[in-house]
Amino acid sequence: MSSSLDVLGIGNAIVDTIARAEDDFLVAIGLSKGAMALVDEARALQLYAQMGPTTVISGGSAANTMAGLASLGCRASFVGKVKNDDAGREFTHDIRQAGVVFNSQPSSDGAATARCLIFVTPDGQRTMNTFLGACQSLEAVDIDEAHVAEAKVLYMEGYLWDPPGAKEAFLKAAKISRASGGKVALSLSDAFCVDRYRSEFLSLIRQGVVDLLFANESELHALYQTGDFDTAISALQAEGKLLGVVTRSEKGCVVVTKNDLVSAPAYPVVEVVDTTGAGDLFAAGFLAGYTKGLPHERSAALGALAAGEIISHVGARPQKNLLQLARDNQLLA
Amino acid sequence: MSSSLDVLGIGNAIVDTIARAEDDFLVAIGLSKGAMALVDEARALQLYAQMGPTTVISGGSAANTMAGLASLGCRASFVGKVKNDDAGREFTHDIRQAGVVFNSQPSSDGAATARCLIFVTPDGQRTMNTFLGACQSLEAVDIDEAHVAEAKVLYMEGYLWDPPGAKEAFLKAAKISRASGGKVALSLSDAFCVDRYRSEFLSLIRQGVVDLLFANESELHALYQTGDFDTAISALQAEGKLLGVVTRSEKGCVVVTKNDLVSAPAYPVVEVVDTTGAGDLFAAGFLAGYTKGLPHERSAALGALAAGEIISHVGARPQKNLLQLARDNQLLA
Repeated sequence: MSSSLDVLGIGNAIVDTIARAEDDFLVAIGLSKGAMALVDEARALQLYAQMGPTTVISGGSAANTMAGLASLGCRASFVGKVKNDDAGREFTHDIRQAGVVFNSQPSSDGAATARCLIFVTPDGQRTMNTFLGACQSLEAVDIDEAHVAEAKVLYMEGYLWDPPGAKEAFLKAAKISRASGGKVALSLSDAFCVDRYRSEFLSLIRQGVVDLLFANESELHALYQTGDFDTAISALQAEGKLLGVVTRSEKGCVVVTKNDLVSAPAYPVVEVVDTTGAGDLFAAGFLAGYTKGLPHERSAALGALAAGEIISHVGARPQKNLLQLARDNQLLA
Repeated sequence: MSSSLDVLGIGNAIVDTIARAEDDFLVAIGLSKGAMALVDEARALQLYAQMGPTTVISGGSAANTMAGLASLGCRASFVGKVKNDDAGREFTHDIRQAGVVFNSQPSSDGAATARCLIFVTPDGQRTMNTFLGACQSLEAVDIDEAHVAEAKVLYMEGYLWDPPGAKEAFLKAAKISRASGGKVALSLSDAFCVDRYRSEFLSLIRQGVVDLLFANESELHALYQTGDFDTAISALQAEGKLLGVVTRSEKGCVVVTKNDLVSAPAYPVVEVVDTTGAGDLFAAGFLAGYTKGLPHERSAALGALAAGEIISHVGARPQKNLLQLARDNQLLA
């Protein structure tokens, strides 16, 4: 294994369109606060017409994580499908200029580049509506064997179970990574996503396809169908050799192994502006430490730092140089 | 005069594309820090290719001011030219959803909707590169007489002197406003813009076309070709019945009349993230007070508050409800 890459991420390539909204408004238009809902193009247009003034920033869960890793000085690559339209060119520009390798071929026909319409309420919580568009055409053939084999860690988002062919891409990449000595990480993405694919995610874990699992509290509760945190953590520990990284918003996070729990606090933030990407950037920070072989506590602190930066502004891509921020906080040399 | 509008603004209708950049980078690509440069489409594409990951938000100087006025609960309208392309639809969506009346007809052929490529350095200073595109086709026929006559204040940006026909639109609107008992405000926009059109701006002032003049320190210095602030202020006072509003960044502002100077402090900001729109939002706050007949000191405090909000995040459109913010600060009831 050459490891010329720290992390290769596979996910939905999405451009975010973000607006502020009141809680009452979400209720009025029938959105479930805090969740990610899949929408078709007609519904996306209808929602856009009702949104306030927007900010447009590249997004996508795993893509955000790769941008975070690059900002932390790690070598990251992203695989995901855009169309060669304005939004696709914007996504491509943004991820490459963030320092992430991005070689996926854009589609030249079919659906438009994916959009996520995000409503941010005054508490900073985000409610997402994703039109998957061109992401629907990601398939196993888009996975380059040699490139996947270069990465220490393969990182994939649970959202990949939504488009029809992406699951095959996921499984192909996991197999290559395993064969080349890499570690495979899965992010559970969203509690509703876990509800849709619970049995498949559990079998990935139990068949040993996944080495690292990233989840927040509600996703873990959804996975084990319990409302009790300790019960969910015990269930996770019972999975055996899995490394679990569970985020709990302002309560910090817990790094879970069979015989050990390591807790770390959240990073203090003056004002929570927009939580979009908090989990993605936590994963970026954690993986930056993990790929350097740092202790879990230090990796968790890096995750908290990166998440703290992202929630202090609109959008899920870092606005500060995270490596500098990590150095200023004595977390990286 | 019916005054169903507080302020009608005329300006270039622009979508901003914003990226962070180091000072060295600006030097390397030959940009003059802090200024607004006009660029053609080829140069815009070349600059875009060199920019970091971007945030896309509607902008335009006078348009930002109108969005600020609407956020402060005032009745604002904007006149400016977009094309019916993606960026034009985004601009239209954003300004209308901000609560601003926007009835200008988009062009269906010719140049694309205007873009401003903005580089923001670590000190929060912005350096702008504007491709005027569809703004070039604004002309006198786009000015609706009855609509202009409805406004207490007509607000126009000095940047309107750049596109060829917009000056005629400006002069037509000023005449209508004068005839219907409105006040005419001019923002000087940028020191280089003042350099380009100094004699025309001075004649507007001296012919009594303009009642209110908004300028920052460097624009005022450019107008009177002096490096000394007190000299520039004296020259402004010598203009007679003009009301001058001069902003000085962290030093606050000075409201200038023939016989009086009223100073007001800047609003304290935790971190200056991006100064784009600071002057535009100062003007919005000041005009919100002015159109309500408040004392200049109170109007200046409203300007400082709105400018303080805008420089604490990326982009030149308010992210908070400015009326609520003004109420929280006991500046409006």
